[in-house]
Amino acid sequence: MRADIALLPGDGIGPEVTAAAVEVLRAVGARHGHDFRFDSFDIGGIAIDRHGEPLPQATLDGCKAADAVLLGAVGGPKWSDPNARVRPEQGLLAIRRALGLYANLRPVRPHAATIGASPIKPHLLAGVDLLVVRELTGGIYFGDKTRDAEGASDRCYYSVAEVERVMRRACTLARARRGHVTSVDKANVLETSRLWRDVATRIVRDEFPDITLEHQLVDSMAMHLIARPRAYDVVVTENMFGDILTDEASMLAGSLGLLPSASLGEGTVGLYEPIHGSAPDIAGKGVANPYGTILSAALLLRHSLGMAQEAACIEDAVDAALSDGAFTADLASDGRAMGTAEATLAVLSRID
Amino acid sequence: MRADIALLPGDGIGPEVTAAAVEVLRAVGARHGHDFRFDSFDIGGIAIDRHGEPLPQATLDGCKAADAVLLGAVGGPKWSDPNARVRPEQGLLAIRRALGLYANLRPVRPHAATIGASPIKPHLLAGVDLLVVRELTGGIYFGDKTRDAEGASDRCYYSVAEVERVMRRACTLARARRGHVTSVDKANVLETSRLWRDVATRIVRDEFPDITLEHQLVDSMAMHLIARPRAYDVVVTENMFGDILTDEASMLAGSLGLLPSASLGEGTVGLYEPIHGSAPDIAGKGVANPYGTILSAALLLRHSLGMAQEAACIEDAVDAALSDGAFTADLASDGRAMGTAEATLAVLSRID
Ligand SMILES: CC(C)[C@H](C(=O)O)[C@@H](O)C(=O)O
Ligand SMILES: CC(C)[C@H](C(=O)O)[C@@H](O)C(=O)O
Repeated sequence: MRADIALLPGDGIGPEVTAAAVEVLRAVGARHGHDFRFDSFDIGGIAIDRHGEPLPQATLDGCKAADAVLLGAVGGPKWSDPNARVRPEQGLLAIRRALGLYANLRPVRPHAATIGASPIKPHLLAGVDLLVVRELTGGIYFGDKTRDAEGASDRCYYSVAEVERVMRRACTLARARRGHVTSVDKANVLETSRLWRDVATRIVRDEFPDITLEHQLVDSMAMHLIARPRAYDVVVTENMFGDILTDEASMLAGSLGLLPSASLGEGTVGLYEPIHGSAPDIAGKGVANPYGTILSAALLLRHSLGMAQEAACIEDAVDAALSDGAFTADLASDGRAMGTAEATLAVLSRID
Repeated sequence: MRADIALLPGDGIGPEVTAAAVEVLRAVGARHGHDFRFDSFDIGGIAIDRHGEPLPQATLDGCKAADAVLLGAVGGPKWSDPNARVRPEQGLLAIRRALGLYANLRPVRPHAATIGASPIKPHLLAGVDLLVVRELTGGIYFGDKTRDAEGASDRCYYSVAEVERVMRRACTLARARRGHVTSVDKANVLETSRLWRDVATRIVRDEFPDITLEHQLVDSMAMHLIARPRAYDVVVTENMFGDILTDEASMLAGSLGLLPSASLGEGTVGLYEPIHGSAPDIAGKGVANPYGTILSAALLLRHSLGMAQEAACIEDAVDAALSDGAFTADLASDGRAMGTAEATLAVLSRID
């Protein structure tokens, strides 16, 4: 099969980790007889520098024409003034919205070999396997904003339809897993959360009676997520809460650098990116952890190209590399860390 | 000295833990020659049942006339419909707002004896001593809300003055500690956060040049808070982020049941409450952890009555009780747990 993949390397370590994932995709393509073609486009800070805007039209067009999009990371000290008119993060928010990518899947399954790098006690982590489904194109991220000499405001809005579609996606994913959905909100304070809870309850009752649904307040969830992480299967929540909870959940896996994500819409191209940022402090040094992006490439094969077997092949290779101690600096405790190239090779040599 | 303390026991375990703290206050009063007088008022679910509203006028008047307020917790299954017209939580939000309690102090200092109950690895917890200052009367909690058949909205608003005063409070508190302030926001996305960051920067530059200020994004903070908790001294943030981060931070201490809080305004009566909720599942069983409320009483003595020595006397007694293994069920790992009365006695017998 032939597939066109749009690459958006972005800033900081983005280009390094994206290149690593491309090598792995090429190897899997060669092994399974697929012809993966890659086309690179600018996004984020580098796009501001080259084109004056964080999401140039050519980038958006390139993504729409592709079968899937693989993104590195955006941002860096050069563009870090939050009050600047154009900012790298705007490119990321704009592409999520322009492609209608309302469901952001962030799986967290700590690997036995990297549990040692987690701040959490090991006995709590054995058997943890959760999938956070974060709403990605609504809420306070995209509401009207105001600012004047007196103060500032942000508006959080959710339509019934926005909550319905992400809830259906979460329930469908839960059906292929353990059938349990935890919906996170702040219904004791927010009107958007009361809507969220009502819609969640109705969708499960009317359309997914086989799913068990539990509601959890976001503050309480921030606690239980680390105190009893095994209790969760699919966790579905709104944009901002999902942002906070998934960074927290990354600590279950030992390092933010390990975690992949898939952003999906309805009949649109999917976008895949590691959940880590551009890590400007280590950019260009060849030490970044490539696993989060390599695992994002696996999600790309599974969700956008229907290549479940090829996806598993990458995941197994990463699994084996980690089991054999192929650790980058964020994971190594004994000072014997691999660089990006060596870790990528460790995966490549285990592809079969 | 004579002091009038308004008691708001509230719902669930609220009455039990409040009664425990009153016993300890009486003992400290007797020892140090103070005459503490207590007057009880209804708030939350019990106030709805008795008066039809979660914050009756008599309660508010009683609090305003007192020298300080000690609160238990509000809420329970009986009043848990988030769409009900009157809800227990409204009483809590209304009293915070009516008394102008804009600064909520939540100290987290894990005790060596209870570190074992934390999901975090012990070596990360030694020496942790942080104070979260949560803005408590602004933000999305109090903005306009809408709801119709199409959707729902909440508005997050902060005025410059609201950010200034909580920032000054945080910096003043940091001066008496290690001089470091971490301001948490989401300035890469929210306009209110850009305002927050600008004001924080200006206040520290112009008024607290001796303080070191660091900005941290809320998602990143949710991760670093458990990965390197020793890095923080005073953490200041807006209402909703503070709600989420303090529940998470409670896990550093081993149990939510251990943590006290103080809510302060300017020239108004202070309100003190444990950060845990009403725990309906264990209410009335005599097994609730009273330490969070007892330690809130210590904060009351320090911040509202100027009794630093008496406050330390309570804190030392709790410290000694914990060192000697006086654990309630949330802390005990060997099944030999004390009830509320026994744990309270363990504190009382160590007051000197
Ligand atoms: C860079 C930022 C705008 C983004 C977000 O908040 O969504 C990031 O934190 C993420 O989680 O992908
Ligand atoms: C009960 C609820 C409204 C309250 C809040 O969100 O402020 C509680 O979670 C707290 O932290 O005191």
